[in-house]
Amino acid sequence: MAQGNTRTDRIKQTPLTRLKRARKRGVFDREVVYAIVDATPLCHVGHLVDDQPVVTPTCHWRAGDHLYWHGSRASRMIQACLDGPVCVTVTHLDGLVLARSGFHHSANYRCAMIFGEPQIVDDAELKMASLEQFVEGLFPGRWQTLRAPTRKEMNATTVLSLPIEEASAKVRTGPPNEASGDELLPIWAGEIPLRVVVDGAIPDAFVSASQATPEHVLAYAKTHVTGAGDR
Amino acid sequence: MAQGNTRTDRIKQTPLTRLKRARKRGVFDREVVYAIVDATPLCHVGHLVDDQPVVTPTCHWRAGDHLYWHGSRASRMIQACLDGPVCVTVTHLDGLVLARSGFHHSANYRCAMIFGEPQIVDDAELKMASLEQFVEGLFPGRWQTLRAPTRKEMNATTVLSLPIEEASAKVRTGPPNEASGDELLPIWAGEIPLRVVVDGAIPDAFVSASQATPEHVLAYAKTHVTGAGDR
Repeated sequence: MAQGNTRTDRIKQTPLTRLKRARKRGVFDREVVYAIVDATPLCHVGHLVDDQPVVTPTCHWRAGDHLYWHGSRASRMIQACLDGPVCVTVTHLDGLVLARSGFHHSANYRCAMIFGEPQIVDDAELKMASLEQFVEGLFPGRWQTLRAPTRKEMNATTVLSLPIEEASAKVRTGPPNEASGDELLPIWAGEIPLRVVVDGAIPDAFVSASQATPEHVLAYAKTHVTGAGDR
Repeated sequence: MAQGNTRTDRIKQTPLTRLKRARKRGVFDREVVYAIVDATPLCHVGHLVDDQPVVTPTCHWRAGDHLYWHGSRASRMIQACLDGPVCVTVTHLDGLVLARSGFHHSANYRCAMIFGEPQIVDDAELKMASLEQFVEGLFPGRWQTLRAPTRKEMNATTVLSLPIEEASAKVRTGPPNEASGDELLPIWAGEIPLRVVVDGAIPDAFVSASQATPEHVLAYAKTHVTGAGDR
């Protein structure tokens, strides 16, 4: 679409994204970062309000090499994102890791962090196209079935765009790493995998009994059961 | 435990926690904030690194009116949390909300934000007790079965404590809010609930075939299937 093709090169490391600790867990491959970002609509946006970091959960989408999110034009989060650098983090908690010592307990997870200064998607056509991508990314075919956005709704909505340039992923998988010798202790150790599942679809009170659940709703349940298998 | 009893009063609103938008979704009841915090070990810690907000996922636990998390003494996140104010956000994405217009699409969620300046839990006994609470909060009875922490492990670990004083929760539930008249359009609208499930337990390669899975592991699966029903 308008945002161009998706790149597949490695992301350049910077002092901000270079891992100080657990380096083997860090990855800078675009495809890894993008897969993490695409596997959930939930992200956490870190921004500043009077020098105080604030972490706001919101929904994001990706098109090509840009991350997008939106909000009310009047929202504090949107305003703050335009006033300074942000960090957008997307995390999947894939499981708990139980070791034979407290120290080596851990978690399996996939996490992507994207740093930068978001821009407003100002152009009316690009803005509309981007909102369409948001809905279509979740529910292919839904956008054209919807009542079209009004000018007032479009004016009340701000869409932000962040190039995925300064970014990294961190991934942990597998069983516990034990201190040498601990693996011989007769203590249960292993993984407890966690997974997000879709629990059907609940029509609202105005959907008639004869109205079929659309394919894009049914398909969501099939494709969006996420877990470690997504990697 | 050492941290004292859990308070049940309402949390005082501040300019940081008072909601600018969607006020009806905001709650300042300690029990609501605590229930959100307790329903997952995953939080996102917002901190500053050279004026850049950074959002780091980590595991937290709560005891009384304090939130705790830990990390390597050398980690950038731990260092940054001691150098300035933080925001810890805990979010559950409970479902997607599909309306008859793009504008009114939304998400059902429970979110708690806690602001403040964390302190190191320095006292050796309190630190050990707090790490025990972390493990016991997830897996009651496990701590006493583990190989005890060594001095070196304790020295390598920093435990941070944050009083839950400046905090708020935000919750959305239920069907879409439609623009007046839209509910009559023959478009499917409703909710797609999401839920985190536990997928059994996978023993590591050193657990013998005759070794039973402990009750605290089996119990985790029963109690920690989270979703909108937790509210």
